[in-house]
Amino acid sequence: MNQQSTFRKKLQHIIFDFNTIPAKLFDLVLIAAILLSVVVVMLDSVTRIHLDYGDVLYIMEWFFTLLFTLEYALRLYVASSKTKYAFSFFGIIDLLSILPTYFSILFPGTQYLLVIRFFRVLRIFRLLKLGKFVREGEFVKASLMASSRKIVIFLFFVLVTVSIIGALMYLIEGEENGFHSIPEGVYWAIVTITTVGYGDIYPQTIMGRMLAAVLMITGYSIIAVPTGIVSAEMASMNEKIKSDLSGIKSCCTSLDHDEDAGFCKVCGKPIR
Amino acid sequence: MNQQSTFRKKLQHIIFDFNTIPAKLFDLVLIAAILLSVVVVMLDSVTRIHLDYGDVLYIMEWFFTLLFTLEYALRLYVASSKTKYAFSFFGIIDLLSILPTYFSILFPGTQYLLVIRFFRVLRIFRLLKLGKFVREGEFVKASLMASSRKIVIFLFFVLVTVSIIGALMYLIEGEENGFHSIPEGVYWAIVTITTVGYGDIYPQTIMGRMLAAVLMITGYSIIAVPTGIVSAEMASMNEKIKSDLSGIKSCCTSLDHDEDAGFCKVCGKPIR
Amino acid sequence: MNQQSTFRKKLQHIIFDFNTIPAKLFDLVLIAAILLSVVVVMLDSVTRIHLDYGDVLYIMEWFFTLLFTLEYALRLYVASSKTKYAFSFFGIIDLLSILPTYFSILFPGTQYLLVIRFFRVLRIFRLLKLGKFVREGEFVKASLMASSRKIVIFLFFVLVTVSIIGALMYLIEGEENGFHSIPEGVYWAIVTITTVGYGDIYPQTIMGRMLAAVLMITGYSIIAVPTGIVSAEMASMNEKIKSDLSGIKSCCTSLDHDEDAGFCKVCGKPIR
Amino acid sequence: MNQQSTFRKKLQHIIFDFNTIPAKLFDLVLIAAILLSVVVVMLDSVTRIHLDYGDVLYIMEWFFTLLFTLEYALRLYVASSKTKYAFSFFGIIDLLSILPTYFSILFPGTQYLLVIRFFRVLRIFRLLKLGKFVREGEFVKASLMASSRKIVIFLFFVLVTVSIIGALMYLIEGEENGFHSIPEGVYWAIVTITTVGYGDIYPQTIMGRMLAAVLMITGYSIIAVPTGIVSAEMASMNEKIKSDLSGIKSCCTSLDHDEDAGFCKVCGKPIR
Repeated sequence: MNQQSTFRKKLQHIIFDFNTIPAKLFDLVLIAAILLSVVVVMLDSVTRIHLDYGDVLYIMEWFFTLLFTLEYALRLYVASSKTKYAFSFFGIIDLLSILPTYFSILFPGTQYLLVIRFFRVLRIFRLLKLGKFVREGEFVKASLMASSRKIVIFLFFVLVTVSIIGALMYLIEGEENGFHSIPEGVYWAIVTITTVGYGDIYPQTIMGRMLAAVLMITGYSIIAVPTGIVSAEMASMNEKIKSDLSGIKSCCTSLDHDEDAGFCKVCGKPIR
Repeated sequence: MNQQSTFRKKLQHIIFDFNTIPAKLFDLVLIAAILLSVVVVMLDSVTRIHLDYGDVLYIMEWFFTLLFTLEYALRLYVASSKTKYAFSFFGIIDLLSILPTYFSILFPGTQYLLVIRFFRVLRIFRLLKLGKFVREGEFVKASLMASSRKIVIFLFFVLVTVSIIGALMYLIEGEENGFHSIPEGVYWAIVTITTVGYGDIYPQTIMGRMLAAVLMITGYSIIAVPTGIVSAEMASMNEKIKSDLSGIKSCCTSLDHDEDAGFCKVCGKPIR
Repeated sequence: MNQQSTFRKKLQHIIFDFNTIPAKLFDLVLIAAILLSVVVVMLDSVTRIHLDYGDVLYIMEWFFTLLFTLEYALRLYVASSKTKYAFSFFGIIDLLSILPTYFSILFPGTQYLLVIRFFRVLRIFRLLKLGKFVREGEFVKASLMASSRKIVIFLFFVLVTVSIIGALMYLIEGEENGFHSIPEGVYWAIVTITTVGYGDIYPQTIMGRMLAAVLMITGYSIIAVPTGIVSAEMASMNEKIKSDLSGIKSCCTSLDHDEDAGFCKVCGKPIR
Repeated sequence: MNQQSTFRKKLQHIIFDFNTIPAKLFDLVLIAAILLSVVVVMLDSVTRIHLDYGDVLYIMEWFFTLLFTLEYALRLYVASSKTKYAFSFFGIIDLLSILPTYFSILFPGTQYLLVIRFFRVLRIFRLLKLGKFVREGEFVKASLMASSRKIVIFLFFVLVTVSIIGALMYLIEGEENGFHSIPEGVYWAIVTITTVGYGDIYPQTIMGRMLAAVLMITGYSIIAVPTGIVSAEMASMNEKIKSDLSGIKSCCTSLDHDEDAGFCKVCGKPIR
């Protein structure tokens, strides 16, 4: 192994891994930079701040963009497979989160697309992986997955309901009461069934209000359905974990697990 | 069996069944046509689109209507019992979803009633029957059925509450603050207890605001009731399925079940 | 037993009981009359209807009032203990639901207080007692009772939170942004934490919006608390009923229970 | 022990303890005084009341402030360790809840900061400790603790979602539709995802409304996640308590527990 390859290996470890001090530090600095750069973009969108501090923010934006460009180049350089990284989820996000600044030279305004940088913060979960967060995250994800089909059915019924009621409201209320088209009626029905209720559009006839009342009580009651689905799934997963654990205590409690271990090295069952 | 009857049998299979390739294809094309025709009706209700593309949409509307008329005629032709189909849920929906276009020649505006076509999309669940969706759908339906009596009691209390508080608000706030009648007060109470809160009517006196605060906190807390009912029911059904499964593994895991089987052929217990 | 006492006994049975045909019929007619009389009061509050049909509604109101006065007199006459009935919950409601009409001769406007008649509809649950509704109602009531202390603690925290944040908002936003006093700030905080959000009062400064965002996310998340409490309680009650049932099947399944029996005659355990 | 030290001991008992009659009485009077003094501050913020009763409220404010100053001095005097009390949570709150009145001589307006006195009401839980409330409170607290990591992950996703969608809305809707900056877009997204929906800012373009509809349905569905987490946790805690109890009945049911005992003296398991 020559010296350059050793250096690259070390760099690769720092950039892509997350379980040693320098690697953790790199991730922390990176996330801080991402958050700061997003705050810069956000503040720059406020007219008053833009007028007073526009220059400073402009320089900071370019500083972060150049930094992230360097980081992207490094990632490409050290990646085992350049193509694989470039076309991975994070590879695309990394590229998209630097391009807008360069484009903004030609097309002003596009720099706001930098908000896509937010997706990079998802890397924070790599850091959290080191603790118990990953197991909890996996738990939430797994119960949502297990419930996904039931939730799709639920959403389908919600969509059919808001479509039909939205169209009925257009017929009942009409243009003069703010329902200018069926899609606008459907939009109103979504605002109502989700109990958001902006109040930009609302029924004014007696028939319309009666239909709205039915929709509201429906929306208020059926929230019980996804909640029930997820609750029941999580309760049954909680129980499964518990019964799995009770059967393996002899094996798993006698071992010293790594800080970042989510599963027992010996039997592969989850540690809590 | 003569040739015509064979042809009719084949057609019947394609139109009413759903577990072979041609039958699935027919259903898919049908659902696509339904969705497209509903989009046409929706877009036609937007004034600006109506002015620019009204002609095209008008032709498309007639095309779909003729298509669905043909389909309806075919269904009548191949149905084992014509009367049974004609008066079934889907038979009535199928008829109602073509009539408005014909009526719109005599009475313009009635074509918006075509939104009833949405109900036809419910056929999509016939397709989903082929997968695991049906079991999940049955699960949701069964737990709602099991909870229905508790939910009726809950809704009864909600209705009594909004009636009394709506009437009280009419007395407290009166016409000058936007509460023009008791039914309007009840409407406001429904908007409030479901936490929709449009803001078209709201209390302005101190007494009214205090009563509203009580109603809001009530509405915010009692949402726990239907949610709790459904969650508990689903949890107990989850458990029942699990215990049913554990006792029958020997029987059901050794069999090759049909792709669309929801229950074991041998013992009749649910497959998961 | 003389004849009058027999007649009184029969009347008493019809008015106060609910498990024979005439008694059921009496209750049904009574509830229909109550609902109709409330509808009359509601419609009379709509200005346009009052102008057109005021006379008819006025006569109906008096008809129902006289009917309920007669009923009240009969109840007093047949009650085993007159004082006990007169001061019972329903006795007071029965009296209060006829008085406003008489008062309205002296003080116009008081007839709207007739909405208190709604409470009389609660008698409907006597009828439902005959079916399985009572058990479900008892279930919901029992789980709310079991959760009541936890919910009191939850409401206490909600009240402290809205008080402090409401006062802070008054300091931050001030009169010029619609927060005229601390109680108004508290009212806004309740509207916000319950996710009602009328939009009659809302923060306009940056600090105020940040605090509001915190309050909204709090309100959105802590709804999980009462829901979780009630769900867990209901799940554990469901289980208890199931385990109670499994231990007594031998006793209870061999008996013919009365239609209105909620509990086994022999062992006193609940029947499902 | 000299006489002064006996007096101090007695005072210490009354002020800091809560399980004898005089100590309970002291706490009750204190909480009543706190609540009354907060009501005074609240009423004084209402312009109309301030004009009419400003003088009386001013005197009451000073009366309560002097009372609480005396109480603070006494607490300092009798505390076993003066520094420990002065820098404890309640010590700081006690000080902060008297200072604003004194400051208001120099800087008018600061007296509204007295709302911090609300925190003192938390002492009420010391009183409730004597009953069964503490166990229920502990239960709620413990299940929230057990769910805290899952809820942190949930809130993280909510924050990333509102940030990205808020920024997108700023790009789509722009200044002319009320979205003046990205932070304002994020504020709108929070108002929407939590289903508060004031209606002070709302989308007006078709694209904006479609994105808003997605956000609303997301917000409406994901409320299932924290609710599911807390429900499942509480259900599993309920079960644990039950199974713990069943194993220890012999020990714990034969004992007379103190009224304020939350756990068995002998085996340390929870009493219900």
